[in-house]
Amino acid sequence: MIFSDAIPADAFRSVRQRSVKLCEPLETEDFTAQPCTEVSPPKWHLAHTSWFFEEVILCKYKHDYQRFNPSFSKLFNSYYKSAGVHWLQSERGNLSRPTVSEVLAYRHYIDEQMLALLKKKTDDLSLKQVLELGLHHEQQHQELLLMDIKYILGINPQLPAYTDAPLPKGEKIQPAWFEHPEGIIETGYDGNGFAYDNEKPKHKSYIYPFRLSQNLVSNGEYLEFIEDGGYSNPALWLSKGYDFINENNITQPLYWSRQDDTLFEFTLHGNLPLDPELPVAHISYFEADAYAKWKACRLPTEQEMEVFHQTTIAEQGTTPPSGLFHPNNTHASSDQLWCWTSSHYSAYPGFSPFSGMAEEYNGKFMCNQFVLRGSCIATPPGHWRTSYRNFYEPHQRWMFSGIRLARDDT
Amino acid sequence: MIFSDAIPADAFRSVRQRSVKLCEPLETEDFTAQPCTEVSPPKWHLAHTSWFFEEVILCKYKHDYQRFNPSFSKLFNSYYKSAGVHWLQSERGNLSRPTVSEVLAYRHYIDEQMLALLKKKTDDLSLKQVLELGLHHEQQHQELLLMDIKYILGINPQLPAYTDAPLPKGEKIQPAWFEHPEGIIETGYDGNGFAYDNEKPKHKSYIYPFRLSQNLVSNGEYLEFIEDGGYSNPALWLSKGYDFINENNITQPLYWSRQDDTLFEFTLHGNLPLDPELPVAHISYFEADAYAKWKACRLPTEQEMEVFHQTTIAEQGTTPPSGLFHPNNTHASSDQLWCWTSSHYSAYPGFSPFSGMAEEYNGKFMCNQFVLRGSCIATPPGHWRTSYRNFYEPHQRWMFSGIRLARDDT
Amino acid sequence: MIFSDAIPADAFRSVRQRSVKLCEPLETEDFTAQPCTEVSPPKWHLAHTSWFFEEVILCKYKHDYQRFNPSFSKLFNSYYKSAGVHWLQSERGNLSRPTVSEVLAYRHYIDEQMLALLKKKTDDLSLKQVLELGLHHEQQHQELLLMDIKYILGINPQLPAYTDAPLPKGEKIQPAWFEHPEGIIETGYDGNGFAYDNEKPKHKSYIYPFRLSQNLVSNGEYLEFIEDGGYSNPALWLSKGYDFINENNITQPLYWSRQDDTLFEFTLHGNLPLDPELPVAHISYFEADAYAKWKACRLPTEQEMEVFHQTTIAEQGTTPPSGLFHPNNTHASSDQLWCWTSSHYSAYPGFSPFSGMAEEYNGKFMCNQFVLRGSCIATPPGHWRTSYRNFYEPHQRWMFSGIRLARDDT
Amino acid sequence: MIFSDAIPADAFRSVRQRSVKLCEPLETEDFTAQPCTEVSPPKWHLAHTSWFFEEVILCKYKHDYQRFNPSFSKLFNSYYKSAGVHWLQSERGNLSRPTVSEVLAYRHYIDEQMLALLKKKTDDLSLKQVLELGLHHEQQHQELLLMDIKYILGINPQLPAYTDAPLPKGEKIQPAWFEHPEGIIETGYDGNGFAYDNEKPKHKSYIYPFRLSQNLVSNGEYLEFIEDGGYSNPALWLSKGYDFINENNITQPLYWSRQDDTLFEFTLHGNLPLDPELPVAHISYFEADAYAKWKACRLPTEQEMEVFHQTTIAEQGTTPPSGLFHPNNTHASSDQLWCWTSSHYSAYPGFSPFSGMAEEYNGKFMCNQFVLRGSCIATPPGHWRTSYRNFYEPHQRWMFSGIRLARDDT
Repeated sequence: MIFSDAIPADAFRSVRQRSVKLCEPLETEDFTAQPCTEVSPPKWHLAHTSWFFEEVILCKYKHDYQRFNPSFSKLFNSYYKSAGVHWLQSERGNLSRPTVSEVLAYRHYIDEQMLALLKKKTDDLSLKQVLELGLHHEQQHQELLLMDIKYILGINPQLPAYTDAPLPKGEKIQPAWFEHPEGIIETGYDGNGFAYDNEKPKHKSYIYPFRLSQNLVSNGEYLEFIEDGGYSNPALWLSKGYDFINENNITQPLYWSRQDDTLFEFTLHGNLPLDPELPVAHISYFEADAYAKWKACRLPTEQEMEVFHQTTIAEQGTTPPSGLFHPNNTHASSDQLWCWTSSHYSAYPGFSPFSGMAEEYNGKFMCNQFVLRGSCIATPPGHWRTSYRNFYEPHQRWMFSGIRLARDDT
Repeated sequence: MIFSDAIPADAFRSVRQRSVKLCEPLETEDFTAQPCTEVSPPKWHLAHTSWFFEEVILCKYKHDYQRFNPSFSKLFNSYYKSAGVHWLQSERGNLSRPTVSEVLAYRHYIDEQMLALLKKKTDDLSLKQVLELGLHHEQQHQELLLMDIKYILGINPQLPAYTDAPLPKGEKIQPAWFEHPEGIIETGYDGNGFAYDNEKPKHKSYIYPFRLSQNLVSNGEYLEFIEDGGYSNPALWLSKGYDFINENNITQPLYWSRQDDTLFEFTLHGNLPLDPELPVAHISYFEADAYAKWKACRLPTEQEMEVFHQTTIAEQGTTPPSGLFHPNNTHASSDQLWCWTSSHYSAYPGFSPFSGMAEEYNGKFMCNQFVLRGSCIATPPGHWRTSYRNFYEPHQRWMFSGIRLARDDT
Repeated sequence: MIFSDAIPADAFRSVRQRSVKLCEPLETEDFTAQPCTEVSPPKWHLAHTSWFFEEVILCKYKHDYQRFNPSFSKLFNSYYKSAGVHWLQSERGNLSRPTVSEVLAYRHYIDEQMLALLKKKTDDLSLKQVLELGLHHEQQHQELLLMDIKYILGINPQLPAYTDAPLPKGEKIQPAWFEHPEGIIETGYDGNGFAYDNEKPKHKSYIYPFRLSQNLVSNGEYLEFIEDGGYSNPALWLSKGYDFINENNITQPLYWSRQDDTLFEFTLHGNLPLDPELPVAHISYFEADAYAKWKACRLPTEQEMEVFHQTTIAEQGTTPPSGLFHPNNTHASSDQLWCWTSSHYSAYPGFSPFSGMAEEYNGKFMCNQFVLRGSCIATPPGHWRTSYRNFYEPHQRWMFSGIRLARDDT
Repeated sequence: MIFSDAIPADAFRSVRQRSVKLCEPLETEDFTAQPCTEVSPPKWHLAHTSWFFEEVILCKYKHDYQRFNPSFSKLFNSYYKSAGVHWLQSERGNLSRPTVSEVLAYRHYIDEQMLALLKKKTDDLSLKQVLELGLHHEQQHQELLLMDIKYILGINPQLPAYTDAPLPKGEKIQPAWFEHPEGIIETGYDGNGFAYDNEKPKHKSYIYPFRLSQNLVSNGEYLEFIEDGGYSNPALWLSKGYDFINENNITQPLYWSRQDDTLFEFTLHGNLPLDPELPVAHISYFEADAYAKWKACRLPTEQEMEVFHQTTIAEQGTTPPSGLFHPNNTHASSDQLWCWTSSHYSAYPGFSPFSGMAEEYNGKFMCNQFVLRGSCIATPPGHWRTSYRNFYEPHQRWMFSGIRLARDDT
């Protein structure tokens, strides 16, 4: 937990600055594009994270608070129905106004108001709690920012790079398996720090012996699957998955392309020749599941992943190599892609949602999504913990997702 | 298990006859309608179940088998890609030919061929196994037949009854709860009889103390939810659910309608004034979940439901009152509606699919569906068992589904 | 005009019987299919034409008229909003009830009521007028019946024939052109017989010298266009047309198919090897226009077609060879396919719509449709006249449409 | 004709500068938005008009011409299939790159290259002709620019004004009718100046006596139609029109809104209280046609409109009041809204398309569109002429369209 020890105002300042810093490489025009519904304009992320502080903290904790602009209340609400009607998600990219500089002015105003408030109410515990939620919320949007920026740049025929830092080459890694015996395990959060409602309560599960690959599936391994006709063999696919790849002409991971006879992968470091040793990224659940089946393996459950993280890399995930925006296996100590699990996203036994507006944070999405575990290169330092549950729909691919294989250990 | 003790030919004859018998009340025109993609024409069910025996048994076990009509191979394949291309599900209702009498002739041919084969190969164990699968398959389609017939009649402005047998009135039932303590339980099938691959293997789970309502939620109770504004309160709904009911203008269960100030429910016994004591039926997961939340309860998990069935009604489900085609709580000993569980439909630990064409029976649908437990008024006698897992998508309502509430017992 | 001279009751009886007779080759199952929105179930045509007499005549002219079934008022209204709400066109095929025999009983009831009325009111001129409209309306539906039956049988993998009468082979025909000089011409109807409102008033147009092919484009000629890459050359196509054929993978006329290396054409006489001398049929406006452009010609205007018909075949179109249900050029004296014109379907100068419910007959469709002239093999004897205007949307192909080329005569 | 007399380089410079000047009030973010498929990002217009000169002139007339950026060839092609594949129209708004300044650099490069070329080839007649086409093309996009900018600003909840110049109030105007007798008239272009291929050849038509309103229908008059229930009376509407307004919940002109009890109209001068004397604008063909029917009038044909313009305002349309971006009837001498005609957009007799890439300019759109005549406040000075034919689909409303009534003069 990053914030409990820090002075709240310092934590606030630090997280808020990072969002703006992530956008520094962008052109003004990049801030408003929304090439598909799920990808939001970077400008929107900068505004929505500010709206969250305004709505949840300033409007409640600050006497006579004056909103920066009353129309933003509707405009930058993402999906909180208890906070009133909101602008349609699919239409975010149609909003040329407010401009980027107006949004930055909005951020500045929120920052000043928040810092003044924090100075005044140093001992308000409930304020600290929502502050922490707001900061974790902003960190989630920092990861989304990188995902969305990558998509906006990646569909552009000019394929502009986000950074000109070079991407180190991958290294050949030896297969290795983590093993775990049968028995009762405990997963979920019960520490003193921050965790989302969906990580609680800590609870017992009965687990069967399994093995988990120490490594993510590499581009080279995935290429074998493709070359073996994996995408045209219905026996490997979930029914909805096979329909999906056929309706959308999907025959390779999201950012792969072929020029003449060379495969390329678009990364935030530019469009680069595919490196066979790097982990395969931007994979849907459908693809991960089909690959695992082709390998006579399966995807892990989220319990298996959590036990794995408890055991081996409890401290991991907090220190992704700075300046790198693509998974790179030379830093083997940390997860660099979210791993799909076979677990549908459901409530834990005894689940009780956050109260207030945050009740809508997690619970209402527990339908038709799958859990991903670990973290990724785009996850902000200090954001992740072992009990962390990420979730996406099985067809989605624009997040930094990868494959970790599991098998029954019999 | 119904068939293991019976003489195979008798079991075959009996199941096959029942399908045709279920269609007796139909007009020829009813056999071809397909009012929506998921509802198949009754004619198609009669043909497809025959196709299953042809494809899985006759083509494999009978030397020099001559197909009744080679074009049926493609026409009546539902979704078995290993058996070749198939006619689009959404286009089944466009096929006026083969006619009903041609389909009945097809059934007759299959029956004769099968009975001849069974006479000859009395000791072939593998044949007995696929025979059993084929019969359970046909029983599943018998339930679908009643669901689909109900839908075809129910969208018709004439609202024709399927049967003119009277429907007994419901009785007021006192609330009662089943209780279960914390601990390790075992669910799944490991008997000697027939079970689908998705019910296996038997395995352990850790379970927390819970209560389960002995009764299904009644129409009258559900009406209170409606009258309290349940359908327009977003806080009660899953996000996808609230979108779904609004896009489709859903404000009540599938077969309810209002004439002047009276509520009616269309049943296979005709369009009847809503009986407040009967269980509410034809409910989506979204509705079941919202109702449970409104009641400050939750839906049970499938493990909880299976433990409940193990304990209380192991023998139940096999004797629905004959001649009744709508749930009726005067027969309290049996389940009469499938109960939605909060469990996404997933593989059990150690799951291994059927082999051959039947590999596509269950596993490829383990995505974005929820498990229902129990059985329903339309389930054929002898089909159900405690470990049985039914599954549907969360928006679907045309099956005989209902609500059984659960709560944590703390 | 066929009816003015006939005894009304005889005309009525004759037209009504013909509709039922056209359905004689059908199986009961064929009566309810609706493979696409624009194709109505044959049962629906039989009922709707009866509804028209009930709504327009019996309800108005018969004292204390009792409807056969009040629910039919909504069910068999096609699109007359002044007659109240109507069942959705796209959902006609979902109605298994009323059954075919109920619909025939409905027809029988209407026939009896009508004949009784006609006997009584022999001198009511306004009644005669709406009777005539009702009979022409039914004749239009007789042509639609054959179009729709052909479509229902033609999408069926069994490709059942409507008639087992043999189809005579086409004959090679020499090219010949009709020529017409510049000047003022008159088109439109001003006779004493029946004509639709859209054919009136007779009016003058200024016309430039043109030539019109005496023959329809043949299958063989159209095949040259295909083999020359016509369907993949965007320069030949209207913009909307090129989009349409690509989105729908259209590469040949509607009923053509290729088996091994042989081209077949499905006809009401069965699925036959393509006869190169017969006229190409079931062509969209987009295809007709592209073909004409490829031939360095153009499609005629509707004025040019009407002048052509005035001059050369005034008596034509009334005697299609009986027992033939596919165009056959051995009967050169009559048109056998509707010819696409380049004229958008618009009101004539001074147009005044029918009054009453019939106001909705033509005028409200004058948008985004093109006029076809002539008549076709499916047009009932006596229905057509020189001023007749048929109209369809440019992508539609299921009517008996063909191509007659025109060119400027300079 | 503006260019024939001018020195080509001066005309080029003047037209090109005006496009950039029209964008001066925009924020960078406004340049990339595409709120619906038909509305293109302003940045795209600036680039596409440059692409046109590059593709049609520089690549052909300039020896060893080096493209500014080869990828622009595909990116800024609108729909010219003869010039190769092109970026999807609906995806233009997804392109954050090239940035506005890159596009301005592109324009600068094209301008320099073109001016150098024009200096060199002063006597090349064919160059002059395509130059003229390119300049008229750019002028068309200047009008589109204002339409699209208005839409981008108008869907924004902030409703930003394009100009802060005040909009003069409308004046009450007395009804007056233009009258024209029966006979042969001539329409179409045969002058020496520039005209599009679709305006040619000049040709005769036979016309019936008619009257045409001297004034456009005003907001106040249109409001009466609304208040009389015009939008919910199916008898007034084309069938496709009634479906369209119901599916899209259309109950008033595009830019009208109601706040409390006051009607507002969004204009490029800001969101203003509706002025009842100003002409009603941003009306679909469906709405114009329904209004005319409600008034017991009709829309004029394009021939009637051209005769009207020939007679009364031949010099008109060339001098819209500068600095005004909304129709204003105090300048009665000029048309300020395009008037819908009842004429489908078709080829004139003897039509022959431009050759080369420009063949795709007009002819391929002659399907399912209606002609509009006159010009509008956004039409560049000097662009319009009496024979000018504008065309849009009947549901479209974002152009500056209005209603001029006609009636038969009997």
